[in-house]
Amino acid sequence: MDERLHRQLDFLIEIDKLKHVMRQSPLIDGSRKENDAEHSWHLAVMAMVLADHADEPVDVCRVMKMVLIHDVVEIDAGDTFAYDEHGRKDQAERERRAADRLFALLPTDQAADFRALWDEFEEDDTADARFARALDRLQPMTLNYLNQGGTWRQKGVTADKVFARNRPIGHGSATLWRHAKGWIDDAVAKGYLEP
Amino acid sequence: MDERLHRQLDFLIEIDKLKHVMRQSPLIDGSRKENDAEHSWHLAVMAMVLADHADEPVDVCRVMKMVLIHDVVEIDAGDTFAYDEHGRKDQAERERRAADRLFALLPTDQAADFRALWDEFEEDDTADARFARALDRLQPMTLNYLNQGGTWRQKGVTADKVFARNRPIGHGSATLWRHAKGWIDDAVAKGYLEP
Repeated sequence: MDERLHRQLDFLIEIDKLKHVMRQSPLIDGSRKENDAEHSWHLAVMAMVLADHADEPVDVCRVMKMVLIHDVVEIDAGDTFAYDEHGRKDQAERERRAADRLFALLPTDQAADFRALWDEFEEDDTADARFARALDRLQPMTLNYLNQGGTWRQKGVTADKVFARNRPIGHGSATLWRHAKGWIDDAVAKGYLEP
Repeated sequence: MDERLHRQLDFLIEIDKLKHVMRQSPLIDGSRKENDAEHSWHLAVMAMVLADHADEPVDVCRVMKMVLIHDVVEIDAGDTFAYDEHGRKDQAERERRAADRLFALLPTDQAADFRALWDEFEEDDTADARFARALDRLQPMTLNYLNQGGTWRQKGVTADKVFARNRPIGHGSATLWRHAKGWIDDAVAKGYLEP
């Protein structure tokens, strides 16, 4: 039991570093950018609150677990900006190597469970993964819409790119995607986002 | 459905503020203090990883939900330092008022569910709550031990106070409390904590 606990604590100590991985989106008040740990927390609460809008039945508990750990690979691989086409080329490989190292810190059974959840999220092939990924798009979009176009303005991102990037929201929830599209239109109307 | 979604989004937007509520404990690398959103994320992953050390059977999903929302009241009530006996006097009343306001943003059924989870955590009277509260003590202790006594040194907290404050770890898990006591002894031996 002691060896097991030590490995578990090693993992829990290592992932403290996720609090230092900065994302592109500013918080809603615009005062600073968000980090991956905060983002993951927000997604997990969104899963609790918004699960009734999923188009297919989902297991909220599994969705929460997925979103809580989906970004830990960025401890090694860093955050890749959503609209950085160059950086996204080797993103999958960098993140896979990170998953190999990080989840292996855990006891073997938990390493396998966590890796399976992470793979499922990446593979986007189950109802739980589709809904988790919808939330992962909706959350930064919510921040950017409410902080008056934070990342979109800074990087000169256009509405068609935001539309394409966030279309997977509709793979998890038609209701949430309808709402998100309304935000894109409104952001263009208000000048937060270039047409 | 639209009214429901609007209320849900209002809540999810409001709780973005939890990312601004600063705690006393520095992160493990000591570079800055932790905020409540990061802390809550860390607790939820701890619940996933450490549930097998709970003394009584626990529902990991409920424990995760509890720790994810247990601190949202600090958006209104602020973080009360664990060893601030003056601030702790009216803490319960301030936090109850915050719970009244914040959870009421949600649709009625979810407001009741979230409030019940929050009350259960506060009342400390079920196996799930005892384990959630054990994690809520173990997490900042882990940070303070690993950053060489951060909050303890700054505030001149003594080992007997750390012992008394963290004893509830043992109400959720004898194994985790045994480990935590080892850290207290080691912190004293290394001079991170006054005897």
